[in-house]
Amino acid sequence: MANTRQQGVDDARLNGITCGPLPGSRKIMVPGARHAGVRVPMREVKLSPTRAKGPDGQSRLVENAPITVYDTSGPYTDPEARIDLRRGIATDRRAWVLSRNDVEELPGLTSEYGRARMEDPALAALRFPGERRPLRAKGGRAVSQMAYAKRGEVTPEMEYVAIREQARVEAAMGRTHHRGEAFGAVMPREITPEFVRDEIARGRAIIPANINHPELEPMIIGRNFRVKVNANIGNSAVASTIEDEVEKMVWSIRWGADTVMDLSTGRNIHETREWIVRNSPVPIGTVPIYQALEKVGGRAEDLTWELFRDTIIEQAEQGVDYFTIHAGVLLRYIPLTAKRVTGIVSRGGSILAKWCLAHHQENFLYTHFDELCEIMRAYDVSFSLGDGLRPGSIADANDEAQFAELTTLGELTRKAWNHDVQVMIEGPGHVPMQLIHENMKKQLELCHEAPFYTLGPLTTDIAPGYDHITSAIGAAMIGWFGTAMLCYVTPKEHLGLPDKDDVRDGVMAYKIAAHAADLAKGHPGAQHRDDALSRARFEFRWEDQFNLGLDPERAQEFHDETLPGEGSKLSHFCSMCGPKFCSMKITEEVRDYAASQGNLVPENALARGMREKSEEFLKKGGEIYREE
Amino acid sequence: MANTRQQGVDDARLNGITCGPLPGSRKIMVPGARHAGVRVPMREVKLSPTRAKGPDGQSRLVENAPITVYDTSGPYTDPEARIDLRRGIATDRRAWVLSRNDVEELPGLTSEYGRARMEDPALAALRFPGERRPLRAKGGRAVSQMAYAKRGEVTPEMEYVAIREQARVEAAMGRTHHRGEAFGAVMPREITPEFVRDEIARGRAIIPANINHPELEPMIIGRNFRVKVNANIGNSAVASTIEDEVEKMVWSIRWGADTVMDLSTGRNIHETREWIVRNSPVPIGTVPIYQALEKVGGRAEDLTWELFRDTIIEQAEQGVDYFTIHAGVLLRYIPLTAKRVTGIVSRGGSILAKWCLAHHQENFLYTHFDELCEIMRAYDVSFSLGDGLRPGSIADANDEAQFAELTTLGELTRKAWNHDVQVMIEGPGHVPMQLIHENMKKQLELCHEAPFYTLGPLTTDIAPGYDHITSAIGAAMIGWFGTAMLCYVTPKEHLGLPDKDDVRDGVMAYKIAAHAADLAKGHPGAQHRDDALSRARFEFRWEDQFNLGLDPERAQEFHDETLPGEGSKLSHFCSMCGPKFCSMKITEEVRDYAASQGNLVPENALARGMREKSEEFLKKGGEIYREE
Repeated sequence: MANTRQQGVDDARLNGITCGPLPGSRKIMVPGARHAGVRVPMREVKLSPTRAKGPDGQSRLVENAPITVYDTSGPYTDPEARIDLRRGIATDRRAWVLSRNDVEELPGLTSEYGRARMEDPALAALRFPGERRPLRAKGGRAVSQMAYAKRGEVTPEMEYVAIREQARVEAAMGRTHHRGEAFGAVMPREITPEFVRDEIARGRAIIPANINHPELEPMIIGRNFRVKVNANIGNSAVASTIEDEVEKMVWSIRWGADTVMDLSTGRNIHETREWIVRNSPVPIGTVPIYQALEKVGGRAEDLTWELFRDTIIEQAEQGVDYFTIHAGVLLRYIPLTAKRVTGIVSRGGSILAKWCLAHHQENFLYTHFDELCEIMRAYDVSFSLGDGLRPGSIADANDEAQFAELTTLGELTRKAWNHDVQVMIEGPGHVPMQLIHENMKKQLELCHEAPFYTLGPLTTDIAPGYDHITSAIGAAMIGWFGTAMLCYVTPKEHLGLPDKDDVRDGVMAYKIAAHAADLAKGHPGAQHRDDALSRARFEFRWEDQFNLGLDPERAQEFHDETLPGEGSKLSHFCSMCGPKFCSMKITEEVRDYAASQGNLVPENALARGMREKSEEFLKKGGEIYREE
Repeated sequence: MANTRQQGVDDARLNGITCGPLPGSRKIMVPGARHAGVRVPMREVKLSPTRAKGPDGQSRLVENAPITVYDTSGPYTDPEARIDLRRGIATDRRAWVLSRNDVEELPGLTSEYGRARMEDPALAALRFPGERRPLRAKGGRAVSQMAYAKRGEVTPEMEYVAIREQARVEAAMGRTHHRGEAFGAVMPREITPEFVRDEIARGRAIIPANINHPELEPMIIGRNFRVKVNANIGNSAVASTIEDEVEKMVWSIRWGADTVMDLSTGRNIHETREWIVRNSPVPIGTVPIYQALEKVGGRAEDLTWELFRDTIIEQAEQGVDYFTIHAGVLLRYIPLTAKRVTGIVSRGGSILAKWCLAHHQENFLYTHFDELCEIMRAYDVSFSLGDGLRPGSIADANDEAQFAELTTLGELTRKAWNHDVQVMIEGPGHVPMQLIHENMKKQLELCHEAPFYTLGPLTTDIAPGYDHITSAIGAAMIGWFGTAMLCYVTPKEHLGLPDKDDVRDGVMAYKIAAHAADLAKGHPGAQHRDDALSRARFEFRWEDQFNLGLDPERAQEFHDETLPGEGSKLSHFCSMCGPKFCSMKITEEVRDYAASQGNLVPENALARGMREKSEEFLKKGGEIYREE
């Protein structure tokens, strides 16, 4: 509360940032083959050996190969990395950008506002230290990943994401997994840089990668890749500090957020963002209209294209990777919202609606869309075309206003692609389950398969305090149907600003939804982690079960509440059932028995072998329920 | 921990049971029309008035009618009720049972074990006070709701559930709601007692209602009714006391559990259950094999039909409403589980598998199924045919073992129906999203539309600590497809015994899933609550938003963390966005404007009216973002 008057950044709090590896995990770096400096971080989870019976009846230890998982956490989980938030994280990607010889270093910030903030002595204590010269495309060129892809070039970023998506899954490829239902998505077993390039060129995927974000570990968003998760952070006029927001960013990527949106609307938005971008290995998205509105004291009708233009240049030169742009909120669509139960619930959408009404003019983001594209392609900022008219309640789902706007977003997609600007499309909102699939189908059709990026959707309105769950249900489903990235919802949705616990709960709910979607699509790299965890569970390898989970710390805490101590992590039962009722334990015996009968014994063979074996079973297993 | 040696029941803790209405709610009783004593409890949520502008531009208060919601909480939320756990709650239903003249009061308990416990002086301090004479059908009759339904009788229980399901939804009937997709379910707009009777007679729904559970507030489980939620409680050998378990029961129904299963496996199971049933207004289910196993010291191979028979009679005479019976775990199916990743994960399933293997005999629950039916129909205990071979991991979903057992459960369903015993069928487990629908379709086909009662399913294995969420996703979907009751999963699943917080989190996740399913099916009584809450949200009626939610207390807590104090509950913005960015606020203005233009203004009219109105808008709304 009351942090609107923050005077400086607290060193002690900066130093208290959450660091260190997740339990049982280590950071590995997988090198690229084509481009120098491509080293893709992954997390390797070490497993304990399995105690197995050999043919001689003796038990022995059999090693379990470590499992590699996709890693979003950046250097913060690398004990080798030296973290100093005041310097920002490593900028390895800068060399790739410069090597393309199509950008120039500017003498200073282009944005007037940015310069004014830079020169304001009152902000010295809040400002990210040091000076940085922004990069921009030379002579109006497109320096977007899409432009390169269309020219047939495989950039280091493309090679990077190909390796990252593959996540060394070859090791798991021999295993069987369930056939998926992918609704037209095509996920190859081997993800090549060329496949990535083709998807980018086609507009079916994006790599949000501003040339001014050299700290970035590139990632890809598209429905033929793993489903991604975005976490929103950001202060508001009533709460939070810069240190809080940086920690929330680090915290959210620790738990698996693939991108982070800084939705700050309070004071010092500019400075907060700089701290975040300089320390973020994941793409940062923003909604520039929020800051623009701050600049006009909150009076939507005072917004102008010129002011907005300065704002996006300001943010582009800081390194923001994607902008939510509500260019589809057209004047003629606004009355379509009048009969709704909850009208316009998108903040950006409502700001623009108000502007349109006040001026009786078409949305300036729509009328200046070409100019917007020219700016964004000069920095490779991707569009996240905002759904300003998304439904804010079950009642308003899939209505005329929503789909009218989606049609316009489809038109704008083509326009952006003509400028070689990368595009994704934002989606609802609140949608009951039976109406979710229609959203995906219409989006694919109207927006030419540009990646869909949805908020939830929430499948009911009646659970404030639990909307991470109401929406994880919808998110899992729409992810399955083809949404490329899921924007998380925290338990505080509709009620307040999320704190760290809420961020963790929100990210977790959405990692679950995304992974459930990958499984359902039949992603070839998905099920082996479930299988590894379930094997660990079955074999009472408790630590492995914790460490293979999305949140090893919470799993262990919960376990220890009932059965604390190192000892019970090796115990052959869990506290839920106690030693006598452990089905896993009994199954071991069943399995041993079946093995002694030959596997999958047909009924006759079973009948034959059963009688004589039953005595033996009793003898051997006389006291199976050992009290441990 | 270490409560296996509980010596007595603590009065102070009993008196500390959670009581009192939910915020903004009061208990109402809706009387029946046919049967004396039918008074159906519902919860009425009082709403504040809306401040609306009249045609004269003056604002006035417009009343909002209260919203009626289905109420599972029993007398504990009724300030008029006198709660004394040592006496149990009111037994109004006993008169209905006796009035049918088909039961007799027995001189004492039939079960040997029950008698021994009753006479053991060492148990005096643990025992539920007073003596109760059990009822049983006269002369081997069927006293089941199914038997009455087949004869065309509408019992008080049937009238009760008809009124309860209707939940005074007539008031909401005028409202539009989205068309559902019900996958063959048929939910009439008016639920009559005859409709209930027909569904019961057909076996498509059950009213679990043991004649020895006169404390019951009857409820119905079937896919043409609201989707229900079960909460599991119960001690284990390593944790919990009787008082804990009674409080968990009261706590879980407070948050909306429709039935409660007592899965105790520790000591004093008999006494714990008596306390629970005597104080439970919801049906109580058990898995009798757990207690049977305790009686033989945990040695599955020592189980006998005779011992099991005594156990179900013991429990039937206590008033247990449904039994999970793993009669489908056949000897020949057991080897089908040998190649699984997680073998047999059902505790009951694994116990019976072990018995079968040890004796080389067919499952005694299968071979004695007719006898079982005869006993259960004499008390009207419903079958919950257990899926002992359900998959315990994604890898094992929808396999041969699972569906082989389901086929047998379908055969047993017919058999039970021939004895007039009510039946539901338990379902998985762990299932990835793309395989969920197949479960429902096969269940409907193989089990002749007997109600499906599923655990989750969990849609991924990789989130221990969050399995209420992994499974709420699957539960919402399978509920939509036709599952009649969802068995909750708590965050402690796979890790430990749930405490009160876990119970609440589990029930909430499942109330969300059940309601999302009702919405998706197009249940005529579902959407009006979402609409009422969203209207409250839109109109900044904060208290109404909290109180219409599933968990008013948590919603208010979360709100107050950021913006505490009574004042902000009336404030026209929320802490997430702050006053300037409140889209709801802006929408009000949009709406006012659109209203002044005539609603849903066609494009031409809009263009005509727009110009002159824009000035007026600016004048009137000059300072719209009031800092409050």
